[in-house]
Amino acid sequence: MANEKYRDDAETDINAVSEAFSEELTDLLKQKKYAEVRGRLAETNAVDIAEALENINEELGLDMTILTFRLLPKDSSVEVFAYLDEEEQVSIINGITQHEIDYIIDELAFDDMIDLLEELPANLVDKILLKTSREERKLINTFLNYPENSAGSLMTIDYIDFRENSTAAQALRHIKDVGLDSETIYTAYVMDEKRKLKGVVSLRALVLADDDTLVGDIMHTDVVSVTVTTDQEMVSNMFKRYGLLALPVVDREGRLVGIITVDDIFEIIEDETTEDMHLMAGVTGTGDDEYFDMSVFRHVRTRLPWLFILMCSYMITGGIIERFEGMLSSVICLVSYMPMLMGTGGNSGSQSATLIIRGLSTGEIELRDFPRVAWKEFRISFCIGVLLSLLNFLRVIFIDHNSVIVAVTICVTMLVIVVAAKTIGGLLPMAAKAVGIDPALMAGPVVSSLTDMFSLAIYFVFASAFLGL
Amino acid sequence: MANEKYRDDAETDINAVSEAFSEELTDLLKQKKYAEVRGRLAETNAVDIAEALENINEELGLDMTILTFRLLPKDSSVEVFAYLDEEEQVSIINGITQHEIDYIIDELAFDDMIDLLEELPANLVDKILLKTSREERKLINTFLNYPENSAGSLMTIDYIDFRENSTAAQALRHIKDVGLDSETIYTAYVMDEKRKLKGVVSLRALVLADDDTLVGDIMHTDVVSVTVTTDQEMVSNMFKRYGLLALPVVDREGRLVGIITVDDIFEIIEDETTEDMHLMAGVTGTGDDEYFDMSVFRHVRTRLPWLFILMCSYMITGGIIERFEGMLSSVICLVSYMPMLMGTGGNSGSQSATLIIRGLSTGEIELRDFPRVAWKEFRISFCIGVLLSLLNFLRVIFIDHNSVIVAVTICVTMLVIVVAAKTIGGLLPMAAKAVGIDPALMAGPVVSSLTDMFSLAIYFVFASAFLGL
Repeated sequence: MANEKYRDDAETDINAVSEAFSEELTDLLKQKKYAEVRGRLAETNAVDIAEALENINEELGLDMTILTFRLLPKDSSVEVFAYLDEEEQVSIINGITQHEIDYIIDELAFDDMIDLLEELPANLVDKILLKTSREERKLINTFLNYPENSAGSLMTIDYIDFRENSTAAQALRHIKDVGLDSETIYTAYVMDEKRKLKGVVSLRALVLADDDTLVGDIMHTDVVSVTVTTDQEMVSNMFKRYGLLALPVVDREGRLVGIITVDDIFEIIEDETTEDMHLMAGVTGTGDDEYFDMSVFRHVRTRLPWLFILMCSYMITGGIIERFEGMLSSVICLVSYMPMLMGTGGNSGSQSATLIIRGLSTGEIELRDFPRVAWKEFRISFCIGVLLSLLNFLRVIFIDHNSVIVAVTICVTMLVIVVAAKTIGGLLPMAAKAVGIDPALMAGPVVSSLTDMFSLAIYFVFASAFLGL
Repeated sequence: MANEKYRDDAETDINAVSEAFSEELTDLLKQKKYAEVRGRLAETNAVDIAEALENINEELGLDMTILTFRLLPKDSSVEVFAYLDEEEQVSIINGITQHEIDYIIDELAFDDMIDLLEELPANLVDKILLKTSREERKLINTFLNYPENSAGSLMTIDYIDFRENSTAAQALRHIKDVGLDSETIYTAYVMDEKRKLKGVVSLRALVLADDDTLVGDIMHTDVVSVTVTTDQEMVSNMFKRYGLLALPVVDREGRLVGIITVDDIFEIIEDETTEDMHLMAGVTGTGDDEYFDMSVFRHVRTRLPWLFILMCSYMITGGIIERFEGMLSSVICLVSYMPMLMGTGGNSGSQSATLIIRGLSTGEIELRDFPRVAWKEFRISFCIGVLLSLLNFLRVIFIDHNSVIVAVTICVTMLVIVVAAKTIGGLLPMAAKAVGIDPALMAGPVVSSLTDMFSLAIYFVFASAFLGL
């Protein structure tokens, strides 16, 4: 994030541009200047139009939304429809004629249609599938049954394939003939007679090749592919790693069944990152749902479990304090350093945990790096611990005017806490991953609660030793 | 993250596949089976080869790395080179002949060459630019001077452009003539005589169009573009929002100067996310550097500032405790609930802060949603606060055997703390954004330290009121 960098430059604020368009459209609609609306719609991209439609639905109601939708040029209406939120998609399907529905369903990319069908109530599904053939319906059902977040649920069947012995000219002709329906024609696939994936050839290579070059001679055979059950995180990792525009999906026998295109990957990356961040804050089960779309009750359910678990862990911390109540009431000034020691321990541990969790997630740190991480965190934390201890020594003596022995207690405790917190914070996510627990869970909240516990234990042990209590 | 989901499926582990290849290659090299190495290299993709080369450099040293690099088929050696880390790139440049260097520089995409030049020491830069023309060197200098993380530093000059009045057949012929050097030919740009960007036309549209269709008739005029100074976060947002394969970069006069391609965007998204997460844990200034690449001293510098600032904030917390030392020493059992109240406050606040920070970053929550967030967080926190209070009431009475009045104090404090922490945690990132501070800074550590402060204040005020101290 670097909002401040382009904050002063309104023209480059992505939201500002689309908001301005949305407001302009709303104004024109209020003034019933429909011809102008039509003109503006014709010259704007589908993404901004879809967002404007959502605002219009919010501000002017469904009738106006459908009216605006009908003012769209016919060929871009389907693209706009594909970019709408499910809520608006369902409303529009409910409000337009069967004829208009048939047109949209006909033109919609296969994977967008599957996404739509997953959201629709049963009666609308029937309405939509009225005109599809029995075979198509069977295929649709297969797709609807792929597990959520699997490669199968992400793929489309709109891909182009041909045989090794086609020439480049024949292949381009074939693309021209069938290509209109394909979501992406930039990568085509070469299969043998059993539909097994043999290679991949880019439109770039086809266009640049001489007409009579054989496809088999320009295809790449080092194809990376996934199976229908591959998890979407793995899918997005492969796009990132290999810089792909499309990824073929094969069944267990290696036969091509669909492709995933790069435009669907950004959303997956965003969703996976959001899931990671939420988990790191002890928020579980938000899924792909947006903040305002979730009810208060649903929010409570996603946040309460970890708050409760961590609160219980403080019973142990409370127990430690009870044991040392005698010492605390005789040297009550010790209490005033408790929050600082616990807080600094928690913050130190969170820093290390976050760095390691992120490193594990990007693949920069691997499990076999365990000893390297331990050694590195130990040295880092030792430096930080010494520095913070020295500052505290000065503070306790010169600002708080407490005795040297109290200052020494605080300093030694601080050093041990920072070293322990950073080492535990760094290694806990790796240990979690090793036993199959998501490392993101071992972030801030869990680490803070753990460090609070041993910070106090360390503090009291040193205090009773040094102060002879 | 969903590691556990594909944990049991070794064949789909992206690292396992490339590690196996890397080990195989290392073994073959140790056995001096160079013909087999050459064979395996020819059938593997550039990304996996680049990673294997890095491992070979680590395990077998530079000589073996250069030997392996020379075993690569000539046409794929440049692609592999482009995927190497800067460290290995510099080592290889140092180890190969001037003739080999010239070949690489000749074939390298323009933006990859700029990236390389930015990393090289001055004497090597001269070696590389030995054969470039004066004009080329001027262009390279312009690119080297674009600010880091700006669109200018990301773009390439390898794009295809033509005029409106070309036909599709002419355009395809033009692509065929110049296309070999272009990093992406899937999107071509239409300019007027002053090089002003007029429209964009996809290779898809060109291939599907009839031969004599005019480019002007199939181009899109609703082009989204950025300027050379646009921040990379904005660039990646535009790719995400519009599902682009390439984005044109224009100068202040609207003239096309370069394009950015989708394959560079994944890395930016990853870097921006990492930066966000680090900031959220109070780690600043890691930049794009990897964990192990940073020295211990560098790590200390990235972590110490916020640890120090937050530690200082605990002086206030300590001051609050000192004021109430009298009360604490007379009812010492109050001390044992301090960590639980502070910890639960901190965790509650972190949850809300993280949800809002992430929502702001994905664009799902906007500044104008301030009142909605406040109201939602209030209701959520009230529910959670009541539930946690009830549990605590039972615990204080039945497990800790403390008096009812202590239990009531804890419960009321808990409720107020949770409500205050969640409301502050939710609104603080929005307030930060409104005044131009990165909202990611208002995450876990800052929120915890703040909530610790007022949690204790609230606790002591209620305790002295209820217990009459």
